[in-house]
Amino acid sequence: MLADTPKPPYYAVIFSSLRTDDDLDYAATSDRMVELAREQPGFLGVESARSGLGITVSYWESLEAIQTWRLHAEHTLARQAGRERWYSAFRVRVCVVEREYGMG
Amino acid sequence: MLADTPKPPYYAVIFSSLRTDDDLDYAATSDRMVELAREQPGFLGVESARSGLGITVSYWESLEAIQTWRLHAEHTLARQAGRERWYSAFRVRVCVVEREYGMG
Repeated sequence: MLADTPKPPYYAVIFSSLRTDDDLDYAATSDRMVELAREQPGFLGVESARSGLGITVSYWESLEAIQTWRLHAEHTLARQAGRERWYSAFRVRVCVVEREYGMG
Repeated sequence: MLADTPKPPYYAVIFSSLRTDDDLDYAATSDRMVELAREQPGFLGVESARSGLGITVSYWESLEAIQTWRLHAEHTLARQAGRERWYSAFRVRVCVVEREYGMG
């Protein structure tokens, strides 16, 4: 469940969100977006957790890969539904990962 | 609960982890580390979620601020207990946040 990312540098998109009470289609769309993201060129991995606040971090080879995924038609529709129905607030932070270490 | 961070660039430390079954002192130490982090120079905010996988992202003004927090004595002891008892696996990723946008 931890993303198995390569040696830095690579990119991370940190998506932090607060949900509304509207659950209609949320879980299915969320799962579908992860499935679709995994198929994109330059995708390196994803980690996700929610307990009140939700955090999903996706990892990418390049800014171009992030931009291509951002322009994906189904993803664009899902983001629009997210703004309108599923999220009361969110932040997207695009980052360069400079250093990684860990255990296990 | 979303971190109110300044205009980029600034730094993010993404801490992704899987827990062991050892809960002794975990919650209290975790809360204490957030409380202590908030007091550090250069601290900008923190976001945290857990659902199986845990993700905590802390935001910082500079690499120096991250390094100073890393060397804090109480934090060093907590990280050691984390490695030995509370986490079965973790990753730490140090990042430069280049772009931020959002809603709410």
